[in-house]
Amino acid sequence: MGGDHGPSVVVPGAVDGARAFDVGLRLVGDPALVGAALEGLDVGGLDIEVVPATDVIGMDEHPAQAVRRKPHSSIVVALRMIKEGNVEAMVSAGNSGAVMAGALMVLGRIPGIERPAIASYMPSGKSRTLVLDLGAVTDPKPENIVQFAVMGKVYAERVMDRVDPSVGLLSNGEEPTKGNLFVQAVYPLLAATPGIRFHGNVEGKDVALGTVDIVVTDGFTGNVALKTAEGVATMLTDVLRDELTATLPRKLAAFMLRPAFRAVRARLDYAEIGGAPLLGVNGTTIIAHGRSNQLAIRNAVGVARRSAEQGLIDGIKSALDEAHAAITAPSPVDARS
Amino acid sequence: MGGDHGPSVVVPGAVDGARAFDVGLRLVGDPALVGAALEGLDVGGLDIEVVPATDVIGMDEHPAQAVRRKPHSSIVVALRMIKEGNVEAMVSAGNSGAVMAGALMVLGRIPGIERPAIASYMPSGKSRTLVLDLGAVTDPKPENIVQFAVMGKVYAERVMDRVDPSVGLLSNGEEPTKGNLFVQAVYPLLAATPGIRFHGNVEGKDVALGTVDIVVTDGFTGNVALKTAEGVATMLTDVLRDELTATLPRKLAAFMLRPAFRAVRARLDYAEIGGAPLLGVNGTTIIAHGRSNQLAIRNAVGVARRSAEQGLIDGIKSALDEAHAAITAPSPVDARS
Repeated sequence: MGGDHGPSVVVPGAVDGARAFDVGLRLVGDPALVGAALEGLDVGGLDIEVVPATDVIGMDEHPAQAVRRKPHSSIVVALRMIKEGNVEAMVSAGNSGAVMAGALMVLGRIPGIERPAIASYMPSGKSRTLVLDLGAVTDPKPENIVQFAVMGKVYAERVMDRVDPSVGLLSNGEEPTKGNLFVQAVYPLLAATPGIRFHGNVEGKDVALGTVDIVVTDGFTGNVALKTAEGVATMLTDVLRDELTATLPRKLAAFMLRPAFRAVRARLDYAEIGGAPLLGVNGTTIIAHGRSNQLAIRNAVGVARRSAEQGLIDGIKSALDEAHAAITAPSPVDARS
Repeated sequence: MGGDHGPSVVVPGAVDGARAFDVGLRLVGDPALVGAALEGLDVGGLDIEVVPATDVIGMDEHPAQAVRRKPHSSIVVALRMIKEGNVEAMVSAGNSGAVMAGALMVLGRIPGIERPAIASYMPSGKSRTLVLDLGAVTDPKPENIVQFAVMGKVYAERVMDRVDPSVGLLSNGEEPTKGNLFVQAVYPLLAATPGIRFHGNVEGKDVALGTVDIVVTDGFTGNVALKTAEGVATMLTDVLRDELTATLPRKLAAFMLRPAFRAVRARLDYAEIGGAPLLGVNGTTIIAHGRSNQLAIRNAVGVARRSAEQGLIDGIKSALDEAHAAITAPSPVDARS
């Protein structure tokens, strides 16, 4: 029911995703609206059911209040379906705060994770960089960032196919002494975490340049970086369009280059990525951008399927056990005393 | 003596600036190297002197130690010339940490400013946005941000010709309730500061989109945002070049569009901006990027001239007096009691 465009875009996108990624689909929402959106779509051979949900949480509602007051909202009903084992993952383009609050309420946290994080990719031309957190936790404790690193590593390995992925800590310089007091507290913790290949500090530019596989940061800084990147990309596109259409000869030459510009857009478009996982809750939950188009929803279904079939949640649990066991195990010296 | 290219680029750039902006020039450094860089340049009719400085502070030296140990370095000698009233401003492309440490040691702070800030523009297509701090103060107190806002306002008025410039607080959402704990502490202070037209919270995207004249933030977040913007701009340029040269027909069409691409670059190039003021020290100090080319140095000389002739330092002193007097003046109600 969510997203800027509602079922008229989400339903066709989800159906595309069901076919492309061979998944069964439960469409949770107002049966009349969902039914209308299904009309005319080719659903032959697909496993699709409509699950009624009588409430809708608006994009501007207070997240925690909304999920408590609307137990029959599409977000809460879908989360309960994960909890009860009826589905293996959920995708929502709705109120992302409500998805987070609802997931915490219905699914709970993975043991060992204090604060779930939103992970996603930044606009990037080459190798994509996973960044977390992007806004769920604005004032984390240093150990929360270590938990983000462990979850990001498992996601990079299982969903992004990275082998022994590297982790960078977002800072204002590369040297180990750089950073604000918070980053300086996080640095030695990351360096000491077993199973994490810690690259050290990275700068804002490294996110777009793909220096490491995963960048960890607090949700405030991550959100500022993500939106700065989006703003610069929008502004550059506008300036380019402006100059390329300034004269008729330029317009003609630019017209000939349309395939090139389409290729650039495809390499950078958020819709190609689809959805951002909410990492740390006890169930596969994918948050799609509110302005998701049909392609973005389709691809978010792909992200959900891959996360579920690759055992993302179990992988995070194992990695946390391993990191925790290694950190808390008595050292050989201690064992002798 | 500073910058990635040293006197061979800094000296011609400074001479260009002296001619373009009609300023007298004191070139501080090793007389042999500066003299060699001057050779062959047209200096007819210009007021140029070489001021010997026997030490050089390297780009990697520890800033505070270097300025204490090298009183005859070009940075320290130039700052002393401001202090003694021999020059009205200085430009350096050298070790920016050493410029900051040296300026604090030699010039001191403007009364009322606890921590000087580096201010500059982000890459932006339309109206340029002044952002501070960009890395001088990684863990400010909330009141430091108010001081940044006052200094940014004076700079925007006097050097950027903005009338009643607006100030935004960088946050992870526009609503007044958004932000980490630090931003939430700063918000009411900015809203209560006389003489500051406070727009409220702005997001990372607003920096590139020119939503406000001035964006204030702590130096850690500002540095991450600036470098993220630089990284995205570099990455987008690379992807575009890659696609536009992928086939011969594309190359030909792109060749016809060279004037358009040059225009885009001119609108976004940091060299067009020149230098970033170090605001809060008691003397006009302009920091140029280490990788400054000749054009960037030329334009930094222009920024220095304009800052000095517009009375930037006196303007900051007056604005601080006004803000402070207004904040601490008894209200009419208090006066009666």
